[in-house]
Amino acid sequence: MTINNTFVYLEKRYLFSEIASRVAEYRKSHPGAEILPLGIGDVTLPLAEPMTRALVKASAEMGTPKGFHGYAPDGGYPFLRRAIASYYARLGVSLSPEEIFVSDGAKTDLGAIGEIFEGGTAVLSDPIYPVFYESSLLAGRPVVLLAATEKNGYRPMPDALSEKESYLIYLCSPNNPTGVAYSSAELQQWVDFARRSGSLILFDACYEAYLSSDGFHSILEADGAETCAVEIGSFSKNAGFTGLRCSYTIVSNRILLDGRSVREAWARRQSVKFNGVSYPVERAAEAALSREGIASWRKQVDYYRENARILAGVLTEKGIPFVGGKDSPYLWLSCGKDSWQFFSELLDATGIVGTPGVGFGKAGEGLFRLSSFGSRETMEKAAERFYTFL
Amino acid sequence: MTINNTFVYLEKRYLFSEIASRVAEYRKSHPGAEILPLGIGDVTLPLAEPMTRALVKASAEMGTPKGFHGYAPDGGYPFLRRAIASYYARLGVSLSPEEIFVSDGAKTDLGAIGEIFEGGTAVLSDPIYPVFYESSLLAGRPVVLLAATEKNGYRPMPDALSEKESYLIYLCSPNNPTGVAYSSAELQQWVDFARRSGSLILFDACYEAYLSSDGFHSILEADGAETCAVEIGSFSKNAGFTGLRCSYTIVSNRILLDGRSVREAWARRQSVKFNGVSYPVERAAEAALSREGIASWRKQVDYYRENARILAGVLTEKGIPFVGGKDSPYLWLSCGKDSWQFFSELLDATGIVGTPGVGFGKAGEGLFRLSSFGSRETMEKAAERFYTFL
Repeated sequence: MTINNTFVYLEKRYLFSEIASRVAEYRKSHPGAEILPLGIGDVTLPLAEPMTRALVKASAEMGTPKGFHGYAPDGGYPFLRRAIASYYARLGVSLSPEEIFVSDGAKTDLGAIGEIFEGGTAVLSDPIYPVFYESSLLAGRPVVLLAATEKNGYRPMPDALSEKESYLIYLCSPNNPTGVAYSSAELQQWVDFARRSGSLILFDACYEAYLSSDGFHSILEADGAETCAVEIGSFSKNAGFTGLRCSYTIVSNRILLDGRSVREAWARRQSVKFNGVSYPVERAAEAALSREGIASWRKQVDYYRENARILAGVLTEKGIPFVGGKDSPYLWLSCGKDSWQFFSELLDATGIVGTPGVGFGKAGEGLFRLSSFGSRETMEKAAERFYTFL
Repeated sequence: MTINNTFVYLEKRYLFSEIASRVAEYRKSHPGAEILPLGIGDVTLPLAEPMTRALVKASAEMGTPKGFHGYAPDGGYPFLRRAIASYYARLGVSLSPEEIFVSDGAKTDLGAIGEIFEGGTAVLSDPIYPVFYESSLLAGRPVVLLAATEKNGYRPMPDALSEKESYLIYLCSPNNPTGVAYSSAELQQWVDFARRSGSLILFDACYEAYLSSDGFHSILEADGAETCAVEIGSFSKNAGFTGLRCSYTIVSNRILLDGRSVREAWARRQSVKFNGVSYPVERAAEAALSREGIASWRKQVDYYRENARILAGVLTEKGIPFVGGKDSPYLWLSCGKDSWQFFSELLDATGIVGTPGVGFGKAGEGLFRLSSFGSRETMEKAAERFYTFL
């Protein structure tokens, strides 16, 4: 018995652990220097009042004989599954509760879902959120990378893929890290390709709330998607749940592979390897989908979007090419040099921590991600220092 | 691409889902009948005051600018890792924080840890907690079953294993489902075998708080265990966290396979596929390890143990052979017939829901598990009806 050899394919450290470690070094060598964190995509505004209220109330219930809750249903409490189904109904997407699987994080589910499939090449964009790339490597699954570049508007399409092969296609729109969203027509093309080739789409919808352009908020809005697309959504980036852990994966009853139900396989996998999300967190998530809850986090999303506009203003003024920031909390800018070098120079000169594009894949070399998930004060300071630096 | 074929080796439904479904059918056909749930091992007492207080306080903090917490560290907040290290210090086991990985459940970690190893045969007792058996099947790992029977006191030893092979050995003591605990000398023998054969022990310590006999509460008390044993502990069965989700996995820096660090591989796996436990739950877990917290859940453990004594009394009086109940919330009794048949007869006659032994493995046929995690009232009613039924 040895350590699984697929580990050798991974970079020694996970991207954000590497950044944290470099920032720690910087702190040591620059005591007292103010750091402006625009690196990791972690929300910073406090949990809004409707969700805090629900969380506190359900937490207190846990201490009472009547309100105590033991193991949650694997797939989530009916009240939350119903709330998620209602949230999708606004898009004209009809879901039954058993098609919705509540989980402790999109990262967890994206890392796990590959387990239920055998064969299939993973199709990933480059750059990409590292989790899906790395978990494909760990699973020993072959990977095809589609470069997202200026040339294709950072929106790679299936042109180079064969219709005779079936793929596991990971799509994230609005995209992390580029901040670019596919149009509805483009998503429809992906769904059509998946249907023709017998492929499965894993759609990461974690940033849907940031979409300000017209277009699908969910892949399930595309015709026929219910037979070929799994959607992963999260409460992290809209409702501010990064520190609470709640997400959901939607697997339609109509997705079959060789006549076998993908939904049933995922349900079985979850029953073996997952034990549900805590009751207070599910109650807080339910509150996030109430009318009052949605209104509260829309304000927060607007706040982060305004932050992105402030950063975008500096880039525009300085003539730095960039995308994102409009449909996304992320800006993806051309740094014109080795992206780790830019990371270091920027940190040294300004205390701004961003994310080197190459950390998301080779096609990210020469590019750089800025996250607008900070306070207004941080953004304004960063904009000022960035302006001087560029 | 197809559904992973290893799924065909699984029973169609996870054991406890199957039981839930049969109970639902019974409810339908017996409207109004009172059900006494002694099946699933889920706690029922409310969360004790010190943990509830910490949970509510941290939940309220999440709604404030100063108290908000985003992503938790993958391995857990330092405050909780320190608290776990102190809890182990009472046993003379010294841990550094980076050897402790906080997680959302022992089930999750037991299901996942096999991923970091290549090769190695899984060694499991039969009967066994289904998760580890099923996740081994899903991973396509060969499995050797060691029958735990009356003959070996329900404590199988490594006698039949070869010292020339390296194994992934799953041990659970006090055991689920049998309720029997290994002695310290027996655990030392397992550790010695693991060291001689280059095997790794995965020690499920979730029921350690129920141990009333002398003996190791942790495998890490055995000489040399820090080079060959991973321990998985949980707040579920002692502190009543089944509905909150918090556990930990301890991987010593000193465990190496072919010179490579198992701790580093697990840390890397967690960084890719896990995103930490929620802040309020980690604060509640910290409270569970305070002096006041420990005292509060020891009372609850005593309550469940008293329940077990009540059930044991009936079995003794009726001359039904059984083990467990002393070091464990579970009793493992001889039902003298097909265990699913006994399940149905018992349910029909008394409304008592237990767990058929065969659900935990072939060696569990003819045996039956009763859980004492109910209220005193439930136990007293169950004892009375059981007495009449037997």
